[in-house]
Amino acid sequence: MLQKFQIALDPLYRLKNDFQSGLQQVDQLILENVSANEPLIKTIATTLISAGGKRLRPLLCLASSQLVGKVAQNSFYLAAAVELIHAATLLHDDVIDESYLRRGKQTANTCWGNKPSILVGDFLFARAFELMVKTGNIRFLDILASASAKISEGEVTQLRCIKSLALDIEEYLKIIEYKTATLFAAACQTGALSAGANEATAHQLYEFGKYFGLMYQILDDVLDYTDASRGKQVGDDFREGKVTFPILLAYQTDTDKAFWHQCFDGDNVNNIEFDDVLKRLHNVDAFKQSTVIATQYAQKAQESLQSFNSPVSEMMHLLVESFFEK
Amino acid sequence: MLQKFQIALDPLYRLKNDFQSGLQQVDQLILENVSANEPLIKTIATTLISAGGKRLRPLLCLASSQLVGKVAQNSFYLAAAVELIHAATLLHDDVIDESYLRRGKQTANTCWGNKPSILVGDFLFARAFELMVKTGNIRFLDILASASAKISEGEVTQLRCIKSLALDIEEYLKIIEYKTATLFAAACQTGALSAGANEATAHQLYEFGKYFGLMYQILDDVLDYTDASRGKQVGDDFREGKVTFPILLAYQTDTDKAFWHQCFDGDNVNNIEFDDVLKRLHNVDAFKQSTVIATQYAQKAQESLQSFNSPVSEMMHLLVESFFEK
Repeated sequence: MLQKFQIALDPLYRLKNDFQSGLQQVDQLILENVSANEPLIKTIATTLISAGGKRLRPLLCLASSQLVGKVAQNSFYLAAAVELIHAATLLHDDVIDESYLRRGKQTANTCWGNKPSILVGDFLFARAFELMVKTGNIRFLDILASASAKISEGEVTQLRCIKSLALDIEEYLKIIEYKTATLFAAACQTGALSAGANEATAHQLYEFGKYFGLMYQILDDVLDYTDASRGKQVGDDFREGKVTFPILLAYQTDTDKAFWHQCFDGDNVNNIEFDDVLKRLHNVDAFKQSTVIATQYAQKAQESLQSFNSPVSEMMHLLVESFFEK
Repeated sequence: MLQKFQIALDPLYRLKNDFQSGLQQVDQLILENVSANEPLIKTIATTLISAGGKRLRPLLCLASSQLVGKVAQNSFYLAAAVELIHAATLLHDDVIDESYLRRGKQTANTCWGNKPSILVGDFLFARAFELMVKTGNIRFLDILASASAKISEGEVTQLRCIKSLALDIEEYLKIIEYKTATLFAAACQTGALSAGANEATAHQLYEFGKYFGLMYQILDDVLDYTDASRGKQVGDDFREGKVTFPILLAYQTDTDKAFWHQCFDGDNVNNIEFDDVLKRLHNVDAFKQSTVIATQYAQKAQESLQSFNSPVSEMMHLLVESFFEK
């Protein structure tokens, strides 16, 4: 009973509930658009899409539409396109990170191998653009093509900076802005434009999405070390040699820099006791510091909503806060 | 001197010469659009682009524009976008085929690894769409997004049918139409549309590109067994277990089906003497039969040009024939 009550209070749950029929339409559009004649595509794509996921990007796209006007047919196309781009990047990321689990299930690369994962990712990406074409408005393609290029660019920079303790905060923030925040920003911006918002209003929602995405990725980087309940392996980032915010802050704060070099110089990362890493990260307050920075982006996201005043903006405001209550 | 004379007669050389300044503009556009801030993208993309290649797709795009009117600014954007899509698929194909050489040089996956190759492929694909957006005409995005989805679909089917001697001619033709002919068709169709052609005229050039692409891929499948001068390893398709036209025809013709099962059933393919395979393919006239089918597509390509009568259509006509003179 208590759990039910808590769920009812959870802003993500409430927002998803408010947009339930819209999100169902989006899922329907996605499934229609991934059903190729080729059976292997159909199997991989529908398994990936049906495995769930929070649908945060389409949700924020539809919420942004509602916030400035009314969810239109184009809002659904865009919400579905954004989720397809996200799904394509997940398939490629899991190949690149050699990930075994996602959302508690075996990844596509684990089940079917890297090769189909690469190609089905390409397919979903192309289908996303086909969906955008259905809007008949080239501005949407402009925004989402540019966002897609940035996602890859962020991922390449992240790859180049693997195990690089020389990475500074500015570079890290650019990586996460490109690889994560840009798609949230584009989802909100195109959502607003599809409901008739002018460019200035849509830009406010772009800003909301960008700051939301930065907050989201920093918290995600913390959870990678601390949360065993996410359906991923704890410590994946560490073992992949990714210098994310907690590591970056720890390296800057820790007087014993040698420990971190021992972790990331050479091929030693799998020989390090992960509990030792966790202890050190806690000792230098790396998780707390990361969360403080995430809070600053959360506030900026909320400030971007200031000129709106409606039940939807209130829910988006609460949604931002809810990420700190877990 | 004789060689110079022969080159001067070569239709590909003459066509490239006629469109020299246009192709230079296309190369310039491509290089501008792959120069990301991220140095690893810049290195990989410019190495790939600068390594050359025949630039057949942009050439046919520009030639199609010229054929129906005049090469316009949008023709350049489209020719560059088509080559970027092609480059993106090459990066991913080389990862999937585990190819070591392309155009006589080490592949990007050999030099930099699979991971950057996947991501830079994604980047080039996104940049291709950014270039199409510059045309301001959503019809081009429609054609090329749909072509891109088909390319991936064809590649997935090819992957699913690896080592499958049950593959029939119809399925094989669908694979090569999707993975190869569709992009040639789209290059010609968008080239024509960008020069002001109506949809019916552009469709004739779509047909030209499609049949040209089918011819091209069948001949390419033959050359994979017979031509050591292409800058690729001879027999790659065989060792990858790809059932291409020569194999498919040989299996249908050969009374000793057991030999082919010995090749493709299980993991035996690398233990087979490649010279034995070549001998058998020659004995059952597999290369000759493949070339006959390619000739039929060449004729269909030429027939698609029938309603045009200009020096450019004459050169395109000769270009088709030139593929059989090697």
